[in-house]
Amino acid sequence: MDSIIWENNRLRLLDQTKLPETIEYIECDDYRVVAEAIKRLSVRGAPAIGAAAAYGLVVGAQKIDSADRKVFLERLEAIAGELGATRPTAVNLRWALERMMIRLNTADEQSVEELYKIMLEEAHAIFNEDVQSNRRMGEFGQELLPDGSRVLTHCNAGALATAGYGTALGVIRAAKEKGKEVSVFADETRPLLQGARLTSWEMVQEGIPVTLITDGMAGYLMSKKKIDCVIVGADRITANGDVANKIGTYGVAVLANCHDIPFYVAAPLSTIDMRLSSGNDIPIEERDPKEVTHHGGQAMAPEGVQVWNPAFDVTPNSLVKAIITEMGVVYPPYAENLAKICNPKKEA
Amino acid sequence: MDSIIWENNRLRLLDQTKLPETIEYIECDDYRVVAEAIKRLSVRGAPAIGAAAAYGLVVGAQKIDSADRKVFLERLEAIAGELGATRPTAVNLRWALERMMIRLNTADEQSVEELYKIMLEEAHAIFNEDVQSNRRMGEFGQELLPDGSRVLTHCNAGALATAGYGTALGVIRAAKEKGKEVSVFADETRPLLQGARLTSWEMVQEGIPVTLITDGMAGYLMSKKKIDCVIVGADRITANGDVANKIGTYGVAVLANCHDIPFYVAAPLSTIDMRLSSGNDIPIEERDPKEVTHHGGQAMAPEGVQVWNPAFDVTPNSLVKAIITEMGVVYPPYAENLAKICNPKKEA
Repeated sequence: MDSIIWENNRLRLLDQTKLPETIEYIECDDYRVVAEAIKRLSVRGAPAIGAAAAYGLVVGAQKIDSADRKVFLERLEAIAGELGATRPTAVNLRWALERMMIRLNTADEQSVEELYKIMLEEAHAIFNEDVQSNRRMGEFGQELLPDGSRVLTHCNAGALATAGYGTALGVIRAAKEKGKEVSVFADETRPLLQGARLTSWEMVQEGIPVTLITDGMAGYLMSKKKIDCVIVGADRITANGDVANKIGTYGVAVLANCHDIPFYVAAPLSTIDMRLSSGNDIPIEERDPKEVTHHGGQAMAPEGVQVWNPAFDVTPNSLVKAIITEMGVVYPPYAENLAKICNPKKEA
Repeated sequence: MDSIIWENNRLRLLDQTKLPETIEYIECDDYRVVAEAIKRLSVRGAPAIGAAAAYGLVVGAQKIDSADRKVFLERLEAIAGELGATRPTAVNLRWALERMMIRLNTADEQSVEELYKIMLEEAHAIFNEDVQSNRRMGEFGQELLPDGSRVLTHCNAGALATAGYGTALGVIRAAKEKGKEVSVFADETRPLLQGARLTSWEMVQEGIPVTLITDGMAGYLMSKKKIDCVIVGADRITANGDVANKIGTYGVAVLANCHDIPFYVAAPLSTIDMRLSSGNDIPIEERDPKEVTHHGGQAMAPEGVQVWNPAFDVTPNSLVKAIITEMGVVYPPYAENLAKICNPKKEA
């Protein structure tokens, strides 16, 4: 099941808000449809929204009715601004759009037709590189999982959250492909239940044993020695190794550390934001209170209750045992070791 | 809003599964209706199910068509067995039924009519003493809350979970009655959302500011220094001060300790089980997976996913800053100090 499909010059996005009950694709004939799909989490997961935004820019280009290079690029800049403003926390969104615009602005080609072709190639490259990154991440990460590992994960960092294969779930898939027995506990991940709806679904389809728990059960699960490690994805990692990820991740990391259970983060370099020195600088999105108070249109809380609904939290580097990237597994000290893989030339 | 009403010789139980949307009472003309109401959590909360079971025994007595004392007591013993088997973790259920049967078995009165009268009086006593206990708990506990306190609570330990007033929420109510400003953060408490549906509702009705969060937000809330203490209720406290309470409590306790936030438990002596030496001995109820996978009849997870659904967890005494009882605030060492208040004669 692909979350992002480019076919016949059209972008189709799997509507993940309807999974697992209904499989339905959104036909994106306007970049605003892409922006809306990102905002409402029809497409979600840091790498996936990066790739979707790159294609969204191509969709936007299709409707620009000017053959003037300057006008074309100006319009694209505005569209990139709109797409980039949809969600503040995951850095891959901005990273993909910047990469697209830099490629266009530095292209030797002059005609709008040529530029369109270049941007489509670049979007494909972003998409394909993400799948390859996930595979490499899986290859490196699976070495951390002994045979028989029981892994807790939070939210969905699977094929659905990426261009394919997955980050955290990619590591689990890779362990299975190596012939290891591996089983998964999935935090349901309130409020939007990405663990219940998406991670469980991916694992059931893959034939990997998966047990669903509510988020509040993770601590008890650890105290009962039912898991061996935690692997999660990330929405943004700062230069010092602090990790923004789905709300609830920080609590899981604290609990894992209190129980001497290794806490791993799997993410591609595109998730690492070397411009920010620490997690304190990451903007944390706060979303609609109705995500907490309602389910399927039904109220689950009384009128008049206030709600705090941050979509992400920040896990300090001290709680992260290792960061699994497509360039290898990175250990502390992160400030030093992330710089080495992100700026290899500087270091050389 | 009373959770338990005895009126015109009939027991009425507020159906808490329908709150806050619908206010509906279950008319209990058979003890089996009471047993079913306890099983399906129409009435829930350790003190409330104790009082409901006591009245349930009276309801059972109403249909015993024998004037023979021995037969009457034998039938009651069987009914008490059925009522006591509905839920394994909260000790108040067994405590209330044992208290009823001891009162009956040691009564000088011989006629079934007299015994019926005695048991109704005993059920009323259990009910009324619980309200008084909560008031005293509130009085003692509020001293732990400075003016302006921001309190996190998990599940519902309010008026609905007791004969009235509440244990954890009773402490908060008492602080307000003393003229203190106090505000509440309520964990929604998956899977059955007692925090969203019941605690939020009680606080909104009381005019106490309440902010609803998902269970996974508690850690981030603490790291942001948004709360000053945690107060929860309990389903069973063992002689060493270990605390069984709604699933998720243990995780909150670990997080509170890691953030140097005091973690308090409010519970009446009827919740303390001096027969068990530690929390390892407490039977933990596991409930229907559908509580996790479905909401309002709607599936939220794929077919074929396994589920782990323990209804409670155990918080070790080392994480509990103090236990608030109707006899005063108890501090560590709990083995010594709980024995003093539970067995005052032994100690004297």
